[in-house]
Amino acid sequence: MRLTEHYCNMLAGGRLNRNPQIKVDIRAAGSAMVDGDDGLGHYAAYRAVEVGIELAQQAGVGAVGIAHSSHLGAAGAYALAGAERGFVTFATTNTDSMVALFDGAARFHGTNPLAFAAPADQERAFVLDMSTTVVTRGKIEVYDRLSKELPEGWAVDKTGRPAHDPHTLLEDMGARVGGGILPLGGLGEDFGGHKGYGLAAMVDILCAVLCGAPFLSSVADTATSSARVSHFFGAVQVERFRDAAAFRQDMDHFLRELRQTPPAEGEERVYFAGQKEFECEAETARLGVPLLAQEYDGLCAIGAARGVAVPRSAAAPPPA
Amino acid sequence: MRLTEHYCNMLAGGRLNRNPQIKVDIRAAGSAMVDGDDGLGHYAAYRAVEVGIELAQQAGVGAVGIAHSSHLGAAGAYALAGAERGFVTFATTNTDSMVALFDGAARFHGTNPLAFAAPADQERAFVLDMSTTVVTRGKIEVYDRLSKELPEGWAVDKTGRPAHDPHTLLEDMGARVGGGILPLGGLGEDFGGHKGYGLAAMVDILCAVLCGAPFLSSVADTATSSARVSHFFGAVQVERFRDAAAFRQDMDHFLRELRQTPPAEGEERVYFAGQKEFECEAETARLGVPLLAQEYDGLCAIGAARGVAVPRSAAAPPPA
Repeated sequence: MRLTEHYCNMLAGGRLNRNPQIKVDIRAAGSAMVDGDDGLGHYAAYRAVEVGIELAQQAGVGAVGIAHSSHLGAAGAYALAGAERGFVTFATTNTDSMVALFDGAARFHGTNPLAFAAPADQERAFVLDMSTTVVTRGKIEVYDRLSKELPEGWAVDKTGRPAHDPHTLLEDMGARVGGGILPLGGLGEDFGGHKGYGLAAMVDILCAVLCGAPFLSSVADTATSSARVSHFFGAVQVERFRDAAAFRQDMDHFLRELRQTPPAEGEERVYFAGQKEFECEAETARLGVPLLAQEYDGLCAIGAARGVAVPRSAAAPPPA
Repeated sequence: MRLTEHYCNMLAGGRLNRNPQIKVDIRAAGSAMVDGDDGLGHYAAYRAVEVGIELAQQAGVGAVGIAHSSHLGAAGAYALAGAERGFVTFATTNTDSMVALFDGAARFHGTNPLAFAAPADQERAFVLDMSTTVVTRGKIEVYDRLSKELPEGWAVDKTGRPAHDPHTLLEDMGARVGGGILPLGGLGEDFGGHKGYGLAAMVDILCAVLCGAPFLSSVADTATSSARVSHFFGAVQVERFRDAAAFRQDMDHFLRELRQTPPAEGEERVYFAGQKEFECEAETARLGVPLLAQEYDGLCAIGAARGVAVPRSAAAPPPA
């Protein structure tokens, strides 16, 4: 709901282009730049996946930078789109800065997610879609709504000490006075905080420095523009490395070996990346998408303000 | 020392090929497979960096799979080698399995490091070189030598509970009866253990499944062969995306912005990835490489067993 509102506000206020003309500039057999013309990121991104695949068909690998774009949505969706076409696919984006360095106190880079997907045969696909932080902003917001204290290791306050109160943290982050979510691995180096930060920096270098776009703390919404985030996608044609059918069969073995390993004490099952989401997709296809009443009302309000009626039936209880 | 001994044993016992003939098979404008002919991984890897750069010069991007290889050494060395030639470079390898799944109790995949480097102008380079685990095996060994208890969150024992005793853990891992280092993000999902595991799986898919090599728990030394690990490298030619001089200047800004952010309470400085290593390199170039007496004696013993005298002067105290 927060994102839907954000997209609508950006489009209504002219900070996003409603009629972007995507420009594709092929730079070499395996590389291209895509210009999103300041439109919605999703639109530019699906086009970029196509471009990456066309390049990979020619050169065995395709690398695509996407500049003048905006919020990407779920990076995993684009990686999966490539995998469903049979390509090993990588998709990443920088995001609005809201993460403290592992050894710093200021919000500095984004949650900079990276996604990676590979096709399988009987199994559907391996789909990793992860922020390079301990948690996402969305999870902090959930804790705020529930008035729950944050576990130590998720975020730091504006002095660089562990943040406990989600509300103060979100306010301080919003006002850009300090505090931020921690990189994957947490505060300091003991549990690898420097690794999460390193991954986020890698994402920013690929997306922004390589594409000539704003980076680090400069990535933020302003009064006149959306956060000018940028993306970087890669696609690899399996056939150039080995027989594609053998690859897919080995991916099945790989995913089954993951699923069938004995779980740790207290865990019921072992999952591979993407498996929970595929199971959830199957369930919502059958039962509908569950929405909190609060979320549903929020979407109705966004629709009403723009003359779009949300059908009441969408909120109907699932069939028994 | 442990690795030097390992390499020597593998070479002496015929489990590694002393005279490998590296085969390079260009598969498309941007992709190639390199066959390491069961020799030392380092030798195949530096050749693969060259291949990746040649491909990237043509196609804008180069992707190289390396099979029939062995222990890679430091993945960052190859990423840096590419960056020093002006390319954004990615290097990764799977490793001997010794890591538990975030929700599993058995050792399952390797510490699967990934490295990424990008050139700068006045600054030297950004060089990320990270295992996809909380800590490396080497750190567990240090704690064992010091008889120190492991912090909770580094490893699990053979029942999947937090491991405290480094000695028992190393023995259980060695005997392959269970227990293992934890993925980056730790045990369970609360701090992102599923992300570290996901990165390790991504590495294994790129290195092994894509290259037709052994994966997951099958990656291990045997009586007749070294762990047949495989690698995957990528190189991107900056000029195909934007002006290379502007990129390098922006990399300087990027790295300086990282260095100059205010440190968290208790931290003296903020580092960018690679900075500590460059500073250490400068110091050891001046003062020599510090070695523990124990390590030095071990190297002398390895040399003596093979008729190689280690000069006594190497252990001399540094100049005042």
